[in-house]
Parts: sequence; structure tokens; C-alpha cells
Amino acid sequence: MDAVSFVIDSQLKQTSYPLTSLDMCDLRLVDDQRWPWLLIIPRVAHAVELIDISPDLRAQVWLEIDHVGRVMRDQFSPHKLNIAALGNQVRQLHVHCIARFPEDEAWPNPVWGVGESVPYDSELLNSRLNALRDAFS
Amino acid sequence: MDAVSFVIDSQLKQTSYPLTSLDMCDLRLVDDQRWPWLLIIPRVAHAVELIDISPDLRAQVWLEIDHVGRVMRDQFSPHKLNIAALGNQVRQLHVHCIARFPEDEAWPNPVWGVGESVPYDSELLNSRLNALRDAFS
Repeated sequence: MDAVSFVIDSQLKQTSYPLTSLDMCDLRLVDDQRWPWLLIIPRVAHAVELIDISPDLRAQVWLEIDHVGRVMRDQFSPHKLNIAALGNQVRQLHVHCIARFPEDEAWPNPVWGVGESVPYDSELLNSRLNALRDAFS
Repeated sequence: MDAVSFVIDSQLKQTSYPLTSLDMCDLRLVDDQRWPWLLIIPRVAHAVELIDISPDLRAQVWLEIDHVGRVMRDQFSPHKLNIAALGNQVRQLHVHCIARFPEDEAWPNPVWGVGESVPYDSELLNSRLNALRDAFS
């Protein structure tokens, strides 16, 4: 892991809040209260694809993606989780984990590019960050 | 692995061609020649989320997802791979692996729901299936 030169992409930073750090990955909450939506960002400098990470570290990243999925399921009881590494707009490796519901704005389509994002108000933001930090601690 | 009662969802079957079988997963080629697009379907009956699979088997599924990603990168030299487990429309667990290019029809957006699919003609279908089968053999 090349943590020294690792920095989080500015676009990812601007559209999300820091949540917590796992052994390999930083977690961030996307600033769109329409969906419980986390970003899982492996702290590996210059990684673009999951297969760019060495096999041992990649196995740990997979475990952390699984962990995030379980926490999201426990916290939000979604109808479906969406887990995706796309990276067409921001090349830095990041994995989306989104809790989806049949009544959400985009269902059954993917969430990316749908409507305008709805930034968190401070009350919901703080309660959500606190609940998630408890769940990951 | 509950292989006895495992069957592939009819909608997945109707929109893709069988490609090959790995130890844990069936691979299928999505019938849309706009993108090199594979489905990775773990042969686990009733699985919906990746975290539904037991940890040992899930580790093998992740390895096979990695393997598919490497083959897709070697075969198509995409600008970016899109790897995603969504399942909003078909609940049976399946993972998309799509080779993306800046000149493709949906770039930089996701491919799902973009335009009309373009079914393979038989010549391109056969050459693509043969090349991929060679790569996975």
C-alpha cells in the first residue's frame, strides 16, 4: 500500500462527507439524501481498477466491501444493495454501495445521473453519520 | 453451493448467450454488441446479494470476478472496466463486467437503459465467443 502519496480525488471529496476509515479503505457518505450511499475508497495510490491492487490487498478490499454491504443492510433494510466500481467520471478507484428501495426516485434504474442531488440537511447528516460510525466501530 | 436447484433467471437467459463455466460462476455474453459485456452468475441457488454467499465461496466468487476483469482488459483494452452487482430488475445474483470506451454510446454514463440494444450478428457473435472461450480456457 502506497499510503504516502494517496490522496482522495477532489470531485469525490466535494460530493461526499468523510465517514470512517477501515484497514484498507476510506468510507465516505455521498451528499445526496435520496439514498443511503457510501463510497469505499481503497487507500492505494494511483489505483484505477480493482485488479490494479495486489492480490493480498485486494482480498482485504473485498472483505471490506462485504463488511460495508452487511452494515448497509443492517442499518437500512434495503430491498436491494447496488455495489459498483464504475469510474467513468472519476478514475480513482472507488466502489459505490447504495441502499435501494422500490419507492426511491430512480427505481428500478441505477441512481447515477438521475435528477438533481438533494444535499443533506445538518440534522439528518449528523444522525446518519453517527449511526453509521457506531455501526462501523 | 446448492447446485441442484440452481437455475439461471429467464430474463438473464433471454438477453445473453452462454459463454463458459468457471468453478463457481457461469459466464454469459450480453446480447448487445455496443459493449463487450459479460454477466458473472454464481451457481448458488436463491442468492440475491453477494453477502448471501458463505465467506469461503464468496472469496472464490471475488477471485472469479477478478479473473473476468483481467480477461476483459486483456481482450478489449478498455479505457475503464465497469463492475457492478445491481439486481434491481433481476433479483438473482449476477455481476456485470463491461468494457467501456470514451467513444461508446453511453460514455461517461452507465450503460443500463441507454438507447436500444444492438443484437450481435452471427459473425461477430461467433468470433467474440470463440476469442473469449480461448481466453478463459
